[in-house]
Amino acid sequence: MDIIIKNGVIITASDTYRANIGIKNGKIAAVASQIEDINAKIVDVEGEYVLPGAIDAHTHLEMPFGGTVSADGYEAGTRAAACGGTTTVFDFALQKKGYGLIQTAKERDELCAPAACVDYAFHLVVSDLRPEILEELKTCVDYGIPSFKVFMVYKKEGLMADDGVLCQMLEKSKEVGAIIAVHAENPDLIDIRMEQFLKEGKTSPWYHYLSRPEFVEAEADKRAIHWAKALNAPLYIVHLANKEGMEEVKKARDEGYEIYAETCPQYLYFTNQVYKREDGRNFVCSPPIKGKESQDALWQGIKTGDIATIATDHCPFQSYEKDWGKDDFTNIPNGCMGIENMYPYMLSEANKGRVSFNKVVEVCSTNPARIYGCFPEKGSITVGSDADIVIYDPHKDFTISKENMHSDVDHTIWEGVKLKGYPVMTFSRGRLIFKDGEFLGEPGWGKFLKRKKKI
Amino acid sequence: MDIIIKNGVIITASDTYRANIGIKNGKIAAVASQIEDINAKIVDVEGEYVLPGAIDAHTHLEMPFGGTVSADGYEAGTRAAACGGTTTVFDFALQKKGYGLIQTAKERDELCAPAACVDYAFHLVVSDLRPEILEELKTCVDYGIPSFKVFMVYKKEGLMADDGVLCQMLEKSKEVGAIIAVHAENPDLIDIRMEQFLKEGKTSPWYHYLSRPEFVEAEADKRAIHWAKALNAPLYIVHLANKEGMEEVKKARDEGYEIYAETCPQYLYFTNQVYKREDGRNFVCSPPIKGKESQDALWQGIKTGDIATIATDHCPFQSYEKDWGKDDFTNIPNGCMGIENMYPYMLSEANKGRVSFNKVVEVCSTNPARIYGCFPEKGSITVGSDADIVIYDPHKDFTISKENMHSDVDHTIWEGVKLKGYPVMTFSRGRLIFKDGEFLGEPGWGKFLKRKKKI
Amino acid sequence: MDIIIKNGVIITASDTYRANIGIKNGKIAAVASQIEDINAKIVDVEGEYVLPGAIDAHTHLEMPFGGTVSADGYEAGTRAAACGGTTTVFDFALQKKGYGLIQTAKERDELCAPAACVDYAFHLVVSDLRPEILEELKTCVDYGIPSFKVFMVYKKEGLMADDGVLCQMLEKSKEVGAIIAVHAENPDLIDIRMEQFLKEGKTSPWYHYLSRPEFVEAEADKRAIHWAKALNAPLYIVHLANKEGMEEVKKARDEGYEIYAETCPQYLYFTNQVYKREDGRNFVCSPPIKGKESQDALWQGIKTGDIATIATDHCPFQSYEKDWGKDDFTNIPNGCMGIENMYPYMLSEANKGRVSFNKVVEVCSTNPARIYGCFPEKGSITVGSDADIVIYDPHKDFTISKENMHSDVDHTIWEGVKLKGYPVMTFSRGRLIFKDGEFLGEPGWGKFLKRKKKI
Amino acid sequence: MDIIIKNGVIITASDTYRANIGIKNGKIAAVASQIEDINAKIVDVEGEYVLPGAIDAHTHLEMPFGGTVSADGYEAGTRAAACGGTTTVFDFALQKKGYGLIQTAKERDELCAPAACVDYAFHLVVSDLRPEILEELKTCVDYGIPSFKVFMVYKKEGLMADDGVLCQMLEKSKEVGAIIAVHAENPDLIDIRMEQFLKEGKTSPWYHYLSRPEFVEAEADKRAIHWAKALNAPLYIVHLANKEGMEEVKKARDEGYEIYAETCPQYLYFTNQVYKREDGRNFVCSPPIKGKESQDALWQGIKTGDIATIATDHCPFQSYEKDWGKDDFTNIPNGCMGIENMYPYMLSEANKGRVSFNKVVEVCSTNPARIYGCFPEKGSITVGSDADIVIYDPHKDFTISKENMHSDVDHTIWEGVKLKGYPVMTFSRGRLIFKDGEFLGEPGWGKFLKRKKKI
Repeated sequence: MDIIIKNGVIITASDTYRANIGIKNGKIAAVASQIEDINAKIVDVEGEYVLPGAIDAHTHLEMPFGGTVSADGYEAGTRAAACGGTTTVFDFALQKKGYGLIQTAKERDELCAPAACVDYAFHLVVSDLRPEILEELKTCVDYGIPSFKVFMVYKKEGLMADDGVLCQMLEKSKEVGAIIAVHAENPDLIDIRMEQFLKEGKTSPWYHYLSRPEFVEAEADKRAIHWAKALNAPLYIVHLANKEGMEEVKKARDEGYEIYAETCPQYLYFTNQVYKREDGRNFVCSPPIKGKESQDALWQGIKTGDIATIATDHCPFQSYEKDWGKDDFTNIPNGCMGIENMYPYMLSEANKGRVSFNKVVEVCSTNPARIYGCFPEKGSITVGSDADIVIYDPHKDFTISKENMHSDVDHTIWEGVKLKGYPVMTFSRGRLIFKDGEFLGEPGWGKFLKRKKKI
Repeated sequence: MDIIIKNGVIITASDTYRANIGIKNGKIAAVASQIEDINAKIVDVEGEYVLPGAIDAHTHLEMPFGGTVSADGYEAGTRAAACGGTTTVFDFALQKKGYGLIQTAKERDELCAPAACVDYAFHLVVSDLRPEILEELKTCVDYGIPSFKVFMVYKKEGLMADDGVLCQMLEKSKEVGAIIAVHAENPDLIDIRMEQFLKEGKTSPWYHYLSRPEFVEAEADKRAIHWAKALNAPLYIVHLANKEGMEEVKKARDEGYEIYAETCPQYLYFTNQVYKREDGRNFVCSPPIKGKESQDALWQGIKTGDIATIATDHCPFQSYEKDWGKDDFTNIPNGCMGIENMYPYMLSEANKGRVSFNKVVEVCSTNPARIYGCFPEKGSITVGSDADIVIYDPHKDFTISKENMHSDVDHTIWEGVKLKGYPVMTFSRGRLIFKDGEFLGEPGWGKFLKRKKKI
Repeated sequence: MDIIIKNGVIITASDTYRANIGIKNGKIAAVASQIEDINAKIVDVEGEYVLPGAIDAHTHLEMPFGGTVSADGYEAGTRAAACGGTTTVFDFALQKKGYGLIQTAKERDELCAPAACVDYAFHLVVSDLRPEILEELKTCVDYGIPSFKVFMVYKKEGLMADDGVLCQMLEKSKEVGAIIAVHAENPDLIDIRMEQFLKEGKTSPWYHYLSRPEFVEAEADKRAIHWAKALNAPLYIVHLANKEGMEEVKKARDEGYEIYAETCPQYLYFTNQVYKREDGRNFVCSPPIKGKESQDALWQGIKTGDIATIATDHCPFQSYEKDWGKDDFTNIPNGCMGIENMYPYMLSEANKGRVSFNKVVEVCSTNPARIYGCFPEKGSITVGSDADIVIYDPHKDFTISKENMHSDVDHTIWEGVKLKGYPVMTFSRGRLIFKDGEFLGEPGWGKFLKRKKKI
Repeated sequence: MDIIIKNGVIITASDTYRANIGIKNGKIAAVASQIEDINAKIVDVEGEYVLPGAIDAHTHLEMPFGGTVSADGYEAGTRAAACGGTTTVFDFALQKKGYGLIQTAKERDELCAPAACVDYAFHLVVSDLRPEILEELKTCVDYGIPSFKVFMVYKKEGLMADDGVLCQMLEKSKEVGAIIAVHAENPDLIDIRMEQFLKEGKTSPWYHYLSRPEFVEAEADKRAIHWAKALNAPLYIVHLANKEGMEEVKKARDEGYEIYAETCPQYLYFTNQVYKREDGRNFVCSPPIKGKESQDALWQGIKTGDIATIATDHCPFQSYEKDWGKDDFTNIPNGCMGIENMYPYMLSEANKGRVSFNKVVEVCSTNPARIYGCFPEKGSITVGSDADIVIYDPHKDFTISKENMHSDVDHTIWEGVKLKGYPVMTFSRGRLIFKDGEFLGEPGWGKFLKRKKKI
């Protein structure tokens, strides 16, 4: 063995038990009550928990958006991820008009490969569905990218997939063993509401929320689910943030359809009241954070299994960029940070008794790995899996602050939030890349994750 | 009294009883066990039923569509209506780009007024919603037109209202006391499916059905209902023809929303199997006739009160026009006949015991009058109402045939259908305009019906 | 004509219009814009409304219960009814062990006939279902009693019908054209809860509520509906008072089942908070008044048509009897008054705009007549119907008080309640029996109402 | 290590991977890619699957019932279990009138302990709930029995718990960390229907089904769930066999309630049509096997996670006993065999692709262990767990026959059923007790399983 992690309590999506773990060549080689190897490095974690690293299936690093580029590049973003116990990130490669999909992925990979501190994968965002692009989906799956995203919004921006495009994608994905992820909001309603508010001089961040409230998101959720059911194709809804959509997901799953919903920590901790704060613009993201009823429904969905995954939609901007919208919410670049906060926040909620630790592992690690085709390489602590492991100290108190985060962004919406328990070590394929608040990894360590197609 | 109708059994939406009716100046002046007036014309209807005339809230007379004009003009259409016991028709006035709404209504009225054999009203179809048009809605309501229609389909044809337009219309209609009617189908799906079928050489009328099957209609029903609920505005769905949409209507009504669904006789009697017939093209209309499950759900909806009205969507074309699509369903002008068949067919079903006669009066006469603002002037047999009265012989057998219809069309999809019972007289404002198979009215008798706004 | 009611606005379940009414031999002989008869008595009601008399389908007059007898005998009860615009009451004839059903009805009729001031009918309460009793149901239907009631509670008291009895009744009723009404609460839960509260010294009226809260009633509603659906038999649930039961009714009706729910004014106006009042014991009835959520659901049910009828469950006791339970809620005789308040309260709510006047007529008069087989003899203003007519002054303010009620009871739970509008005249079969606060009728005038079986 | 299982594919509820297992002192000591120990016995299972032993949470061994005793005693029953891959059985200890609960458990244990070939636990059936018995529940939990059962049927037999008893049990179980299991059918309906059929001379096994069809079971399911929800107590429904009950479970779980449903292999493979077979009486069990719609709903429930567990309700009788009811279904002892068929049947269905192997392990092993307080001692393959392990050969074809079963019963309802794949070895706490069709264990080896209370 190269490393032996001793005396910890192992927590997976299904089990909680005490055993030692032996790591060899970056993989988990043994789980046993006793492992002896005189040559191995011993890591004694008595009193601590041993968890699979989290998978953040939704990040936007170095992404051109809103007239600028998101503030965390691949290095900073994956560094922050590592320091929050996230050992795999799924970023988006956005097809430009006229581009091919593999071309798009490769171009993005050139940026990412030299910078990534943890393993990474791409979802391909299809914005220009020509017949040959539809055929290229299969090539992508074979290349190791069996997941595609379409936007149901951003009509004016030229990114929107109409229902015809969405349905063609759904049908084709089913055929080639891929899954379609959607950003579900209704563009027409957003546009008429924004226009109306601006005309009326209503420009504070609260009107960002009011221009895309619960029912504007819910409509698109319901429509996407309608198509997926009609075509019997799997569907993944990103950043679900409203109650009515949650209920439609629940109903479809009860009927036996393969519908997955993802939500994000910001929707679980904050409510729309943040948009009335002085720094409300910092919370501007799309879909916006909703009311308490929606928050409660999301937590309920986690408990019933109808929220399949948690991811961050990490897409931060610097304060000066957020300030562009000081007098007009439509000028605020949309997006918030969270890549370093997801696992700590969710585990803290488990530690406080809201849900079980197993459940947190399930939604933050096991499920994204399963749904997106990299299980059990990622997402579990099983012999043969990558040794992506987090050591968690349930007794360590932690208050989130710009100061103790590892991103390049100059503020955090999580400032001052108190957590019960915190990660103290992160291993990526057996390498210790974070310890006691300090990043120990290096750019370029992270590898592109070739994923399997759905069966 | 001018006329006394004696010895009939009066049937309204709520009552069934034996009494005589006295008519004076075109209005019902008395309902009594005995009415004596030596100067009155006596009509003895012993053994027959006395019903309020039907209201067909959905016709397309003399309408330019599909490269031609629908085959019944205002004279022929309203003549046929009268001979089927329908004493009021609601036709559509379609706004052309750049036109105003009142202008649109007046232009249509010029065509209709000299030709109409029964009273008529217009719904205004909004196809070009400029800000000033939105303001004109109130003027229309004051003018006596408190109902507007938008198409959720016909995107390529430039008629489609997107969700922004639909929602603005819903909000404004609520404000001014009007109601919005929608043709609910999803245009994107229809387009990609049609294109796909043509590419594959699938051109028979069966592919008309498959290009817009149940789920394509249902999606739009659900979306329209979603917006109406979110905005708390009344909504009227025309020609609902599928089960899933029916269920969504039911759910919304249970929750207390003011959602009305209309269906048509062709959806209640035929199923999608007609598209496999030799003359399948004659049945091509949009939305197409659906499967047996949907038909059953519509009948169930009539019984539970969730189908509010029956109307015909009468929009016939001559055989030679239907033949344009012999080799390609996309060339068939969309639309079928029914204006003379609605009341006879529905009453025959009551006569066979499927539903009560009261229910047929409710959905074919009372409800359209209530919903569209002309009750109790129309839609009932009440002192003070217009004497629009049908005498129905429950013992008269009748087989529908091109020969015994009164329209200008050279065929009927109802050919050979056997009915139990048939109307034997129709009175329009106290004037006998139909008797024993013969039309006795005249063009120009029908008046424009100025309607009240919703409260 | 004997009487002509002039210049009123006639309101029925479906219509609102201005006309005169001619009455002859106790029946409505004409409804017309003008009625001339020099010999007739003219009643000018300019500015007032003309309504069908209410039908109270649920009263307990002169009923032995809780160790005493309900405080209104047939004379006092029907006198109070008349003064509140109720022209027909349905009382219960309770089968004693070993008795036959017709025998039971006749015995009760002997008490009632000489005393009744308005027309009356009986529901037969079956408490001893021997095989011959099951056969006697048909005889009762032929006798004019096509409605039976069973208690799902009062197990200890020996009145309870278990599920076997209930189901046999449902099946037989379907066969013979009758309908079963149920008092739905769960006896076992009531018993263990009462026992528990007494053991803990919890004896105030609030514990009456807590011993049979929402879920105890809802269970029995759901069970009764389950059986009715399974056996496809019609069912009438008396005094429904909780939200969950309301929703189950709604669901069953949507599925097309013939399930009727009745609620009472006390459940629509008061909430369970009355049990915390000093005089809380006066409000003790079973089922008890529930919380605000249930009240809201009942009103919503009235609007959606899922509450079919309003009745009173009038079963008052004198103050000294209610006082028996001052120190122990289990000693309070169960029952409240309402027979004189139903129509005035409901019409007042219409007058304030909460529901339409047509709706109030529907639930208080037309629907009970239809469901219980005496339509259109009762329940409408139609030529040929009994002239049971109420004149209502929408401008008369009224404050309910013991002083202005006509019952024999020494208090009223409605004390101090302010109404907008009030009945000013009541006609029973053409006879004026109430005018401007004064009772003008006489005992013995009311007749037994022979009803028709269901078809 | 004592034993090393090499080269198998390990399948747990969540994972599928290739590794070796080391067993020491009856427990799993290591799971690793390589385990070397010169002293260990090596079991090479190349090409085979390694699964946790099944847990049959519902058996009736040596049970007095229907005038006889179930045909498998503890030795035969647990021997058969072992040969079908079941390594833990939960039997029922039925309280007699006047008995205490611990007394009941101990008496039963005296019979079981010397005979058991695999580990066992008891559920306590409460049939006489005196106040002191309610208090004894906590003692039972401390004793290691945190599960109790009540019958909602068997009223005449004196076993039935009425709703008061059921609710007291639910409330107390919540307090002391136990769970209540219910046999849900409605006794009153069964009784009146049986009586009716006998009176009509309808005595074939088909009338066993008709005396307790879908709606008779569904009612009790719905009622039990209603109480559990109202009291917010966990509930376990044994042998759920109908669609409507399944849907109610689903709804309750969606709402977040802790409701578990168990079904049995006989409900998943057979339909009610077996009761029309010549040997129909052999299939008589309660609840009876239902129609195809129910079967489909149960499989759907397995997929959506709403069926929590599979168990057998093993309660066989010899042919001569079943024959008692040849001419009268009410004389057939109720119960069928299945203890040796559960895991093989379910795994065969997985092997055919109907569900995943992980899902079968979840419902047959992991979930019963979790719900009933013996996880991860039982129910998983995890370091520290008991080495209850099944080796499964996916390529071995097997046809069930009386000849190859290991029970004492002279027939099997599964005769002739063909399976794809079959268990080839069973280990109980590290001891090989079954191999290639041969039982290798011994009576007395099985131990009483002291279970943990719920938290």
